[in-house]
Amino acid sequence: MTPHHLDSYFKHVDGLQDKFIDRLREAVAIPSISSEDARRPDVVKMGEWLAAQIRALGGTVELRPLGRQPGREHLDLPPCLLGRLGDDPTKRTILLYGHYDVQPAQKSDGWATDPFTLSIDDKGRMFGRGSTDDKGPVLGWLNAIEAHQKAGVELPVNLLMCFEGMEENGSEGLDDTIKSEAKGFFKDADVVCISDNYWLGTEKPCLTYGVRGCNYYSVEISGPGQDLHSGVYGGLAHEPMTDLIKIMGSLVDPDGKILIKGIDELVAPLTDAEAALYPPIAFTMQDLHQSLGNEVAIHGNKNDALMHKMRYPSLSLHGIEGAFYTPGAKTVIPAKVIGKFSVRTVPNMEIDDVTKLVHKHVEEQFAKLKSKNKMKFNIVHCGKWWVENPNHWNYTAAAKAVERVYGVQPDMTREGGSIPVTLTFQEQLGKNVLLLPMGSSTDAAHSINEKLDKRNYIEGTKLLGAYLHYAAGEPTS
Amino acid sequence: MTPHHLDSYFKHVDGLQDKFIDRLREAVAIPSISSEDARRPDVVKMGEWLAAQIRALGGTVELRPLGRQPGREHLDLPPCLLGRLGDDPTKRTILLYGHYDVQPAQKSDGWATDPFTLSIDDKGRMFGRGSTDDKGPVLGWLNAIEAHQKAGVELPVNLLMCFEGMEENGSEGLDDTIKSEAKGFFKDADVVCISDNYWLGTEKPCLTYGVRGCNYYSVEISGPGQDLHSGVYGGLAHEPMTDLIKIMGSLVDPDGKILIKGIDELVAPLTDAEAALYPPIAFTMQDLHQSLGNEVAIHGNKNDALMHKMRYPSLSLHGIEGAFYTPGAKTVIPAKVIGKFSVRTVPNMEIDDVTKLVHKHVEEQFAKLKSKNKMKFNIVHCGKWWVENPNHWNYTAAAKAVERVYGVQPDMTREGGSIPVTLTFQEQLGKNVLLLPMGSSTDAAHSINEKLDKRNYIEGTKLLGAYLHYAAGEPTS
Repeated sequence: MTPHHLDSYFKHVDGLQDKFIDRLREAVAIPSISSEDARRPDVVKMGEWLAAQIRALGGTVELRPLGRQPGREHLDLPPCLLGRLGDDPTKRTILLYGHYDVQPAQKSDGWATDPFTLSIDDKGRMFGRGSTDDKGPVLGWLNAIEAHQKAGVELPVNLLMCFEGMEENGSEGLDDTIKSEAKGFFKDADVVCISDNYWLGTEKPCLTYGVRGCNYYSVEISGPGQDLHSGVYGGLAHEPMTDLIKIMGSLVDPDGKILIKGIDELVAPLTDAEAALYPPIAFTMQDLHQSLGNEVAIHGNKNDALMHKMRYPSLSLHGIEGAFYTPGAKTVIPAKVIGKFSVRTVPNMEIDDVTKLVHKHVEEQFAKLKSKNKMKFNIVHCGKWWVENPNHWNYTAAAKAVERVYGVQPDMTREGGSIPVTLTFQEQLGKNVLLLPMGSSTDAAHSINEKLDKRNYIEGTKLLGAYLHYAAGEPTS
Repeated sequence: MTPHHLDSYFKHVDGLQDKFIDRLREAVAIPSISSEDARRPDVVKMGEWLAAQIRALGGTVELRPLGRQPGREHLDLPPCLLGRLGDDPTKRTILLYGHYDVQPAQKSDGWATDPFTLSIDDKGRMFGRGSTDDKGPVLGWLNAIEAHQKAGVELPVNLLMCFEGMEENGSEGLDDTIKSEAKGFFKDADVVCISDNYWLGTEKPCLTYGVRGCNYYSVEISGPGQDLHSGVYGGLAHEPMTDLIKIMGSLVDPDGKILIKGIDELVAPLTDAEAALYPPIAFTMQDLHQSLGNEVAIHGNKNDALMHKMRYPSLSLHGIEGAFYTPGAKTVIPAKVIGKFSVRTVPNMEIDDVTKLVHKHVEEQFAKLKSKNKMKFNIVHCGKWWVENPNHWNYTAAAKAVERVYGVQPDMTREGGSIPVTLTFQEQLGKNVLLLPMGSSTDAAHSINEKLDKRNYIEGTKLLGAYLHYAAGEPTS
């Protein structure tokens, strides 16, 4: 099926592109940084601006208050935008998720241009904080609605919208909203579509059907009553750093091999069907070296590298709190040090099974040291992996839309990093969840000089609209 | 010999104690913090105040300019005070070293009283920055001179004084002054006496005849072009932290054993004569636990503990630069990390021999990792140990003075931490150097609530004066 209305829709997207870019310019100009107290009013302003845009397109919107921010009770959480457009019971209903808050940014961080002024260079790169994460994709949905209206093409589905303002700050309040509205505001949703991640490269779109989980731990070693001078006490006392470094060194090898007994056995075996997904993916070792910034890849070939990013666990040592960390030389024996590390989890590693193995390993390693210091193992936070069925009509519809707009079959990918909301929607609504990215791997979300390519924004708007049509027509899977 | 003049001298010290405390109060009130730009004029003011005091006692003083501060050329170094009192060629000449600058201090650091107002509590503890480090001891010499004059007792020796204003900030410029004046201003010195360290405990004075050296190193591991997200890249890249932790973990065991091949062989064997010095030392495991703030001592008995502080090397891991170090959780793979560690050295560990062994060890450990990251071994700074002949008349004189004032034989100790000026005087002047402390182990030099006990100040003034008499009369050793 190739909906014939799409040609007219695409033409109107092209014709409206200046207006769509202006819409993004307006959005970028509102510095809706959710992690900075002083910017909280701008986050609220951004939510209200977005609500007004949706209302102007005929949608209904509630800006749902989420109460005070836990632990920072002087701040109100930004509202969660709950929107609806269309309620035709004969149509499928797609729930769209996105976020209208952004990461911090200051020109002095090293931006080439003002981060809150959309700046377009001669390669069509549109620089600005939030351009790709996630204002561009959110506005892509609005653009798609407007282009349909201007083209006189009826939307083939009902839309529910859930746009939050705390994604860059732990999505506080969102899980509760999803849980409480699963049988309420969200009850009509047939599937969920999220445009908030990125292509693997710069040329080929992808559909993302899984993300790794993350179990984050800390190990605290304390002993001396206060920091000691290494001249006066070196050789006399059990030093917490010595103990901690031994424990941290026992967790993982330089080739990435996790040394905790039992972890490997939890990992789902690779099936032939899954193995077949990796070779077609548009990704080269050169891409990897470029994104690593150096030739420090562990694996020598693309398939191994992709599988270690998408379907195998990893363990990273992040740092140590309490030790000497500034430039220069300080002859300190730190009294209390806290090592931080995390395990990226994949099917079928259950959170508690992993924690049990890690805890046991750390206790055993510490016991071996015969140290008089005290050790405390802490769970900092754990989020489960998410994997979706990529054969669902939600995915086949999206794949057809990609082929229609970009002329290629999308890569089927899983992300190494976690996107917790995917799992919440899957678990609470019991519906298929799709990640349908708009931006590319070079967009520098969270970094300086964040951008969205004009091509990705305009063709991406076409893609989102086309997806709605294929989603309307795809047979139930 | 028990110089009969001492009784009268002691009586005058007691009679003048209020004046001596006022002298310390005036000195503490000048916030001569050498490491803070804004306080540099106060350091200079303190030098001038001290010069005026010495001149008032009949001494001659030069405030020797040391030029600009290397690396911070907008600042002049504080002058080095070169003083002299007496030039009788029939008398021995004692060179006194001390410093008139202090560590930083602010009430808000947690001081119970204003750090620059001498505050005396009902236990006779005189709180104030610099009270014990090193204004009290420096003024002790001036008090001793004044009490001699008031008692009508002639000073039995000539005095040379070298009081610097940069001790707490690397003693910039001092080594050059000592070198250039070794055959000049300092040429008449028969011995050197430094009162700038502390008793091992609170009751029994000590004479200090050695300090450990310190070789400080860093190991830098770099790989990725920038910090990476552990979700996106965990398991794909050689992580600098993993490599560094393995190397740091290979250096030392939790029981303090240095794992670098060849280090042990450099340590001078323990002779019976030296072994006999430790048992009489007034020090208990309880003292050690108290100063460690917890029962985390490696060794189970006093003699082992003392020898590991004074005559065995140690290796401490200080921290890591470039890794995540704040509270909370950050899923970062740091791109470049720098591990810092140092080796406390003892006879006969030569700086370069130690460096060669450490460097070789680190290179071997890194090679074993088969990592694609880069490793760089750096020497941060190295200072040699110093050990003096404790049977020299300089020491036997001091021991007699201790016995006369305190009624006990002093402990013969070596310090775990380095005091570089001792070695410079020993090497440049070729004269015996003695550390004759005034303060006790609880004085909290460099910490909040630094104090000097009134007893230590007044009896210490007696001690310094008595030492001059015994030094004058002690037969050449």
